[in-house]
Formats: sequence, structure tokens, C-alpha cells
Amino acid sequence: MNIGKIGILTSGGDSPGMNAAIRAVVRTASYYCVNCIGISLGYKGLINNEMRKVVPTDVNNLIHRGGTILKTARSEEFKTKFGRKKANINYKKNGLEGLIVIGGDGSFTGAMIFGQEYNIPIIGIPGTIDNDIYGTDFTVGYDTALNTAIEAIDKIRDTATSHNRLFFIEVMGKDSGFIALNSGIATGALDILIPEKKYNLDKLFYSIEKVKQKGKYSSIIIVSEGKKLGGVYDLAKTTKKKFPDYDIRVSILGHIQRGGYPTCSDRVLASRLGVASVEALISGKKNVMTGIKANKVIFTPFLKAIKKKRKIDIDLIKISDIIAC
Amino acid sequence: MNIGKIGILTSGGDSPGMNAAIRAVVRTASYYCVNCIGISLGYKGLINNEMRKVVPTDVNNLIHRGGTILKTARSEEFKTKFGRKKANINYKKNGLEGLIVIGGDGSFTGAMIFGQEYNIPIIGIPGTIDNDIYGTDFTVGYDTALNTAIEAIDKIRDTATSHNRLFFIEVMGKDSGFIALNSGIATGALDILIPEKKYNLDKLFYSIEKVKQKGKYSSIIIVSEGKKLGGVYDLAKTTKKKFPDYDIRVSILGHIQRGGYPTCSDRVLASRLGVASVEALISGKKNVMTGIKANKVIFTPFLKAIKKKRKIDIDLIKISDIIAC
Amino acid sequence: MNIGKIGILTSGGDSPGMNAAIRAVVRTASYYCVNCIGISLGYKGLINNEMRKVVPTDVNNLIHRGGTILKTARSEEFKTKFGRKKANINYKKNGLEGLIVIGGDGSFTGAMIFGQEYNIPIIGIPGTIDNDIYGTDFTVGYDTALNTAIEAIDKIRDTATSHNRLFFIEVMGKDSGFIALNSGIATGALDILIPEKKYNLDKLFYSIEKVKQKGKYSSIIIVSEGKKLGGVYDLAKTTKKKFPDYDIRVSILGHIQRGGYPTCSDRVLASRLGVASVEALISGKKNVMTGIKANKVIFTPFLKAIKKKRKIDIDLIKISDIIAC
Amino acid sequence: MNIGKIGILTSGGDSPGMNAAIRAVVRTASYYCVNCIGISLGYKGLINNEMRKVVPTDVNNLIHRGGTILKTARSEEFKTKFGRKKANINYKKNGLEGLIVIGGDGSFTGAMIFGQEYNIPIIGIPGTIDNDIYGTDFTVGYDTALNTAIEAIDKIRDTATSHNRLFFIEVMGKDSGFIALNSGIATGALDILIPEKKYNLDKLFYSIEKVKQKGKYSSIIIVSEGKKLGGVYDLAKTTKKKFPDYDIRVSILGHIQRGGYPTCSDRVLASRLGVASVEALISGKKNVMTGIKANKVIFTPFLKAIKKKRKIDIDLIKISDIIAC
Repeated sequence: MNIGKIGILTSGGDSPGMNAAIRAVVRTASYYCVNCIGISLGYKGLINNEMRKVVPTDVNNLIHRGGTILKTARSEEFKTKFGRKKANINYKKNGLEGLIVIGGDGSFTGAMIFGQEYNIPIIGIPGTIDNDIYGTDFTVGYDTALNTAIEAIDKIRDTATSHNRLFFIEVMGKDSGFIALNSGIATGALDILIPEKKYNLDKLFYSIEKVKQKGKYSSIIIVSEGKKLGGVYDLAKTTKKKFPDYDIRVSILGHIQRGGYPTCSDRVLASRLGVASVEALISGKKNVMTGIKANKVIFTPFLKAIKKKRKIDIDLIKISDIIAC
Repeated sequence: MNIGKIGILTSGGDSPGMNAAIRAVVRTASYYCVNCIGISLGYKGLINNEMRKVVPTDVNNLIHRGGTILKTARSEEFKTKFGRKKANINYKKNGLEGLIVIGGDGSFTGAMIFGQEYNIPIIGIPGTIDNDIYGTDFTVGYDTALNTAIEAIDKIRDTATSHNRLFFIEVMGKDSGFIALNSGIATGALDILIPEKKYNLDKLFYSIEKVKQKGKYSSIIIVSEGKKLGGVYDLAKTTKKKFPDYDIRVSILGHIQRGGYPTCSDRVLASRLGVASVEALISGKKNVMTGIKANKVIFTPFLKAIKKKRKIDIDLIKISDIIAC
Repeated sequence: MNIGKIGILTSGGDSPGMNAAIRAVVRTASYYCVNCIGISLGYKGLINNEMRKVVPTDVNNLIHRGGTILKTARSEEFKTKFGRKKANINYKKNGLEGLIVIGGDGSFTGAMIFGQEYNIPIIGIPGTIDNDIYGTDFTVGYDTALNTAIEAIDKIRDTATSHNRLFFIEVMGKDSGFIALNSGIATGALDILIPEKKYNLDKLFYSIEKVKQKGKYSSIIIVSEGKKLGGVYDLAKTTKKKFPDYDIRVSILGHIQRGGYPTCSDRVLASRLGVASVEALISGKKNVMTGIKANKVIFTPFLKAIKKKRKIDIDLIKISDIIAC
Repeated sequence: MNIGKIGILTSGGDSPGMNAAIRAVVRTASYYCVNCIGISLGYKGLINNEMRKVVPTDVNNLIHRGGTILKTARSEEFKTKFGRKKANINYKKNGLEGLIVIGGDGSFTGAMIFGQEYNIPIIGIPGTIDNDIYGTDFTVGYDTALNTAIEAIDKIRDTATSHNRLFFIEVMGKDSGFIALNSGIATGALDILIPEKKYNLDKLFYSIEKVKQKGKYSSIIIVSEGKKLGGVYDLAKTTKKKFPDYDIRVSILGHIQRGGYPTCSDRVLASRLGVASVEALISGKKNVMTGIKANKVIFTPFLKAIKKKRKIDIDLIKISDIIAC
């Protein structure tokens, strides 16, 4: 297919590696003699016509930087017919012939609707730290978030061990326990509470009791954020009632998990998907998300990527139980 | 002076580099043919007679590890005459002829009273991330905590910039703004709120307005923990009322600031003070804290170290104002 | 199967995550009521009967530490019939009923021969930074080595850019370009020279010329170690002759790539394979290596793991060419 | 004094924190309503008239980045009268009324001669990883280089310990042992060889023998680069002859020591000196270097800064001897 100009935007929550993906898209477009337009602030920028040409030298020295130079936002207006109409007007006005959207579930829903409404070819790149997207083994930013989380938890363990403290540590992942489960295993957490599994205070209390018997008074318990689990402060309070002689503390890792220099794995993943998404547009693909499965690039229709849920690996829960203490 | 056996303990909140100080004490004692007894959990261990001999090979591969292998605690009992009496009984029973205490203000107060009551030679090593101790340019752990803080703030800035957000970030330092002031300058914070300075919402609002005019919508504001400043959530709320169109977030760095691998500067400082404290005991010194001033080891009487307060550098506040935007 | 006692050893070059694997093996053995014996210095320790019982508390606070607490070595003696005979005597004397070997190709060859000679059930865990083992998507230590490499290369790029310099950087991987190819893509290297691909000075010179035309005078070229590629100093010299006005430097990353705190991905991988290897012994498996494929644990006969070679992903070379400049 | 326009350049080897200094200079100039011109590639850019205005927004998001956005170079031409004449012509043509030079010894020599020849007010900021400049306790970049060095050495120690190896590690510092001495103490090196101290193979061999007797076969020996010490490979060879059963390896840390994200301490130092240098120009100072002494900003005439040598702390050598083993 003959494409002369494409647009690229990042949408939803930012994640480390988005810049590496942008760089790959811009360079690949240039490689295939396609012009590339960077759209600011996600769909908002499309609606407000905030965009400018980006060339390969604009993305020099960018692959290792956190965040997104295109900036990102959530757009309520794009959820309306009127908002998308404005977006399409700018899309046409700027002579775009395809769009690459880096983001998560919500961003792909918008992309799917917009693409169908105006027959616009759109390719999605999964960029979110939560790893909860169907159609890819890994999302861009997930591996970095995991490593940021474990570095922080390692630090907290230093002080937990020195003080014989019990720490409840909240990590990101409202609807999905990927970060909690993997960071919990990687830091030797006593227990890991994730939204996918009904959590059980009795089991937690039993584990605390068990390691206490072994003479270990410091422990880390990892908890996914979100109301599903009742909140980390409540958990700490309930546990304190059961173990009044324990020194129990809470730490919420928070926004540090979204930033930072992307890991090697995230940079390579972002680069591969960036190249693949441009080549997909050129080859006439549309309405699909690009992802990685068993180390191969694959494509999944937006509808499937949105509707299906990437399931957490149940085996890992058992592994955590076996090696925690 | 002829000393045959000394004890070492860590007390109060832990800080990175305490292990490096322990290592230096143990190795220096061995170098001068003095036996060294490690006391667990601070004064608690002295009261409960939890101690054991430590030899140079016990501290192999330790200099770079966070926390304290001796563990630390706060002891209410040691504040009582009765508690200290028990401590002295164990001190005598174990044949100790001197004590090295790594900790902060509170620990030195205990050391001073105990030392005078029972005529026990005690040397203090300032170990706290807050840097708020008179008699030393730097406390062991402060430099590491600063670097932990700026790495976290750098990560948050990635996401702040990508989303055009205003972040209020709380760092440690209840009564002292060292961490806030230095980490704020080092991360280009728009404003820095510390307990030593009456803070001024009008000035903060003026700064936000000023950078807004320059087209910059993302900013970092660093706040020292503690009630003196009203709390970071209240600040965020008040600011949101004034700037309702801003996306304002809060992040509390918390306990990660106490852990982690000590920086080079903290390891060298801890090593120097560890060596100096043993040599001080041998040379007959007592009732003093060792510290570093203009790159020289000095000694300060406990009373002075406790009573006087290390003042924050007012020049730095002006520097922050000049280069923030 | 009813197994009462197993042995574990690390062999060959060390890699980050070996400790996490040891921890998982020890804890899993305990979970299934199997005794675990730690053998020092690989096969050497088996020959010299250097081993001792390890229990779950021995591996507390270990998951995040680089290196291997069991130590590792290469053993020439184990390659001889006589050496293996001595090893078997100690194996029997200590009542071992199975062995877990963490290492690479060479270690598995030894394991296979030894296991067949004396009918000893042995399970292998792939631990090497090179990732060149058939039967697993990732080897334990590879992800950490990659991240160590890119952090170092990022630092060198700072100075390369500031000085307009051309850097030849040698990374590990004598017979395999996994580290070079992935770290090269992740750091935006101008060219990547790996043993799997005939390298072409003309292509390299063409790339240098091309970016020069774009006004970029600093670049990074990544080279796999080893004689196959002629050596990084020779490459630099030849390039200097072609581009005499360039400031060309060489950096050899060297041994830092073997150490360091394992990444999340390496810790989780090591934990999974550690659990799987003990369960495999218990279930009667022998003479196989455990690995991960498409996120599932699989087993590969030693012979296949040794004979077949894990191939590098040719697509990645093309990706590097597209986005390098 | 009334100054309307100043120039800034970085010269000599780059060091982490130079960007933070540039940022502080630009922002401070703006604060005092002084225009700021960024000169590329050090004195070369002055000679070739490569310069452009820099405003506060140009240095957004810069404080944490390694290297120097102004680029740096060594200029042979500036050492000639003719070169400096051309530099002065451009200096005048661009309406500059003062110059800030970030660099080391060599850069300040050039600054002094140029300033005197053409009566140009110049202020120096010490930017070098070597810390070998008289008139300041710390140079910009030194603290970061130290931390880069110890992180690398920590990694190598992992593998040294796992393999029972003896490592000779070369760090930067041709004429000055600051990096070697401090990183050696911080990593528990068995011995530290620096140019300031006649080194003694007998002492080194004695230490190796001593720890061997204690059953420790792995050790780190830190060596400053440069011919004064005979070269790290020669050292390793001589040691191997003496201890033929040892597994001895060499690692040269090299250029990674110049790059990387500056530490908190370097960012604050660079910010303070950046502010001070602009204020110095405004207040009429010239021909001096700004530095930090006992936490106060001070000024030292270029001649003194160049002629005198900052001495290494001899006490530290003794400390290293006491706690090394």
C-alpha cells in the first residue's frame, strides 16, 4: 500500500518505553519514506489540532528516557461523537493516512470506534505498566515497573529486617495482579494479595504465625492497589489487632512505578512493536493491536484485545507459597 | 589506655551505612587486639543480654549492605533507672570496658545518662538519614537517603511531565528540612517547603502562576513530612481550590528513604567514624560523639551534640528560588 | 517417587540469579520434606567432598544477591573417569538421591555423563548470562546482564555525545550475540557486530558516513567479544584509518556483566526453575534441563540442550538496521 | 556592575553535573536580567564562532542528565596567540561582557591567559571527575564518578567471591588517587595503589598472604590508571608469578566513570557554583575559580588553583590498611 503520512500519539497513563516506541515509529516511517506527524496529549491533541512533523533527528537520544515526549492525557471529549468528528476533521486536514496509538484498553476502545466510524487505519501498541492486555505476553513499561517496584521493596526490606517489622506494601494494578505477583515472588514476600484471587486473612495470619515460630519477625506483604482488596491501611489495622505485639507499617509505592529509564527488555519490545506497527500500516493492516507472543510479533483485532482479559499465571501463586518461607 | 573488650550497638531508626560503621568498628578493634561484642536491637539487647562476639570475618561482604545486622530498636525501658541498671549488670557481666553507639539524638541522650550513671566510656557515631545532628557536617545515611529521594523524584517527574501534572512529594525529615531542601534543588523543584521556614502559600501560588505563564504545566513541589507544615494532602487540596484546572497529585516517598545500598560517601564516612570511635575509646575518650567537619574527624560532647541544633543552610533556599524556573 | 536427600551445586561461570535459584531449590526441598545438601565450588566440591546441609533459614535475604553462595568453579578432574569416580563415592557416602546442577553447556555435559555412568538422577537449571542454551527462552542471569550492559553503555553515550566521539564497546558473548544484539538495539547503536553474522566493514563505514552527513559525529558500535570478530581494538584501528578526523575510543565492559542484583525477571525465572527442578526429581525425572518456553516450564534432555544451538533472532538485526539512524 | 551578556562553555573532559551547572548559570543570568550565550565545544566554539542564545526554558529537564549539552573539546588552537585572537574577535562581535568556563586545570590555564591578554572577566567552575583541583573540597562530577566506580566494583566482587578470584581493577585518575582511594575504601579493597604513594609489591603480597591464611581467596585491588604505577596488566602478571595457584583477573572500568546521572551532591554543588559564578561576574570578580570549602562558596585566583595541588587525605590510607581485612 502506498502511504504518505501517518500520525502517532500516546494515550492514557504513561509508561516507560513509550519514548522508545515513538522513536521506532518515527525512524521506521522515515526508512520507508513515510512522513510522520506527532500528535500531542493523545486524542485531545487530535481534537485540538496540536500536532507537528517529527523527523528522525527529533528522536535522537530518546530511547532511554522515561515518559512520553508527545505527552499523554485522557480525553472525555473523544468518547463523544462530536469529539471524534472534530478529530476526523483534523485528521483529514493534516493529510494523515493512518494512525498509531500507544496506550492501553481504553485507548484501543477509542481507536476501534474512531477507526470504524471514519474508516481510518489504526494500529495499536500496548503501552501500560499493568500488563493486563490480551494479545501480548508483555506490554511496554511492565518490565520497568516491575524492576522499579522490586528495587523499592528491597530498600524497604532493609529497614524491615533491621527493625523486625511487618510491612504491607501497595503496588500498582487496580484490576490485575501482575505487578504484585511478580514483584512479590522476586522479593520473597510472605504473602501476595491480588484482585484475581479471593484473599484470605486466615491464610495470611497462619503464614505470619509460621515464620514467627521460626524466629523471623520481619516480613513483607505485597498488596495490589484498589478497593477490591479493602485497602492496605485496613489490612494493616486488622493484622495489628491479631498480632498486637508486632510493629506493622504501610508503604504505598505509588507513582514512581510509572517513571524511570526503561529496562533493556522494554526498549527492545517497544522498538520491535514500533517497527511492526508502521510496517503493518504500510501493508494495509488496520484495527489491530501489535503484540509479542513467544518472542514473535503478532496482531490481534482491537475488539478481541479489549474484550478478552489476559489471565494471570496461577502457577506463580503456588510457587510463591512454596518458597516464601 | 588498655582496653580488652568493647560493645557495639545500633539504636533508633536505621540508616544506610550503619553496617559499614559496624564493619569498621569490628575490624579496628581486631587491629588493636580488642575484643568486640555485638549487641542486638540497641539498648534492648543490652537490657536483655542479647549479645555475641563478632570477629572480622563476620563482617565480610557487609560494607555495601543497607540496614544493620545488629538490628535496631527504640527502648522505653532504657529511659528508666531500672532499665539502665539491668543494662549495666549485663555490661559488667560480659566484661565490657567501653561502648560504641550508632544512632541519633535520642540514642545519644541515653548514652550520656547511662555513661554518667555508671562511669562507662561511650563514643557515639551519628547514624541517621535526617542530618540534623550538631557536631558533624554529615550523618551516616544522609547522602544515601538524598540519592534515593532524587531517583524517586526523577521517576515521578517523568510522569508529571508526560501528563502536565503538579506533584506534591513528601520526603522524610520531621524537624529538619535537609532532605527536602537538597533533594528539591537537585530535582529542580518549583518550591520546597521545610519546617525551618514559615511557608507561604502565596509565594507557592505565585510560582505556579509564573511557570504557567511560561507554558509549563507540570511541576514538582517538595514537602518535609510532619505536622508543622499541615500535611501534604491538605496542601494539595488548598492548591487545587486555587487552580481547579490543574491535575494535582500527591506522592509520599516513605520508608524507601531508609534503605538501600549506601553511597560511596556514606561508606567512607562510616568507615572513618568507625575507626575513629574505637581509637577514641582506646585513647581514653568518653561521653563524646565523633563527626566530620571540613573533612577532619572531630569529637563533640554528647551534651552539646544533643542540645545544639545543626542549622540548615539558608543560602540554599535562595539558590532554589533563583534557579527553580 | 520417594526421595530423602538431594544435592545442589553451581558450576561454570557465575550469573546473577543463581542465588535465587539456590534459594528456591532449598525452600522447595524443605516444602516436600526432602533434605538438601549444598555442594561448594561445583563438581570440584563433589570430588573433594565439600558439602553441608542447607536449610530454609540459610537462604533468608538471598534472593536479591548477585553471585552464588555455593561458589562455582570449572573442574578439569571431573572430565576424567577417575574424577567422576571420586565424585560418585562422595555422592553415595552423603546419601544423596539426586542432583541439581545450575550452569551452562559445559556443566550439563558433565552432568549427562556422570548421570549415565552411575545412574544418578540429575536435573539442570540453565544459569549463564549468554542465553545461548537450547531448550529455554531465557537463561538465568541473561536479563540482568543485558540491563547492566545498557546502563554502562548509556553512561558511555553521555560522554560520546559530549565529545563527538565514536565508541567501540565490547560486550560479553564469545559464541553468541544475544547480549550484543539486544543491548545494541536498546541503546540505539549505529551498528552491532555479532559472531552469528558475517560482519561487513563496508556496511559499517557506510553507516558512519550516513550519520555524518546528518551532522551526527558521535556513535556507539557494539561488538561481541571473541576472536571471531578480530578484536575490538583492531576494528577501532581500521576505522580510524578510514575516518582519520574522528575521535575513536574503545571500551570493554568486561566482568561487571556477570555481577549485580538480579532483575525481577531473573529472580522470578530462577524461582520457577528452582521449584520445577526439585519437583522433577521427586516425580522421577532425570537427565533433563528445565527451561521456560512461551511462559511455561518445559524439560529438555541434556543431549538435546547441549547439541542444539539456540538461534539468535534474525528479525532483530533488521530492526536494528531500520531504527539505528 | 552592569553586565548585559555573558558566555558559557564547557571545556576538557566532560563530567556528570556539567549540565546542572549550565542550567544554574542560564537561570541565574535570566534572574538578574543578563543574556546568556551558550558556546559549543569549549574554546573551539569561541574560535569558530559557534554559539547561540540560551534561555531558561532551554534548560528544562536538564539537571539530571549526564554529559554537557554545550559539548566539550580540547583546543590546541586556543593555546596559540592567533587562536585566542580569533576567540577575542568573536567574543567582542557577540557583545559578550564576561565568560564562565566549566572545566579543569587545563581549561583554567587557557582562561587565565585569555582573560589577562584581552582584559576579559572570566569565572571558572571546577568540573572534572578527578577532584584534583586546589581551591575546592569537591569538583563537579567527582561524587558521581565515585558512585559509578563502586557500583561496578560491587558487581565485580560478586563474581570474584563466587569464583575465589583476585581482581585488579583500574579506575580513573592519572595523576591523582582520589577515585582509587575512596572507591577502594568503600568497596573493602585489599589494597589500593595510587600515584601519590610509592607502591610496594611486598606490602601487597603480604596482604594477599595474610587473607589467604584466614581462608579468603577472593580479593579486590584498586589501581589508579596511568604509567606511574606500571600498568594494571603488569601488576597482575607479577602477582601471578608470586601466587601461581591464584585465579587473577583484570578489569578496567574506563569511560563509564565519566557518564551517568549526577548524584544529589553533584547536582547541588553544580547549582551552587553556577549561581555563584554569575553573581561573581555581576559583582565585578574576574580571573578566579569558584569552589566549595567547608560548605561555603569561596573564590580562588586561577593562578593558585592551577599551581597548587589538592592533596589527598593521608589519613584515609591508614584507614584502608586498618579495615581491609
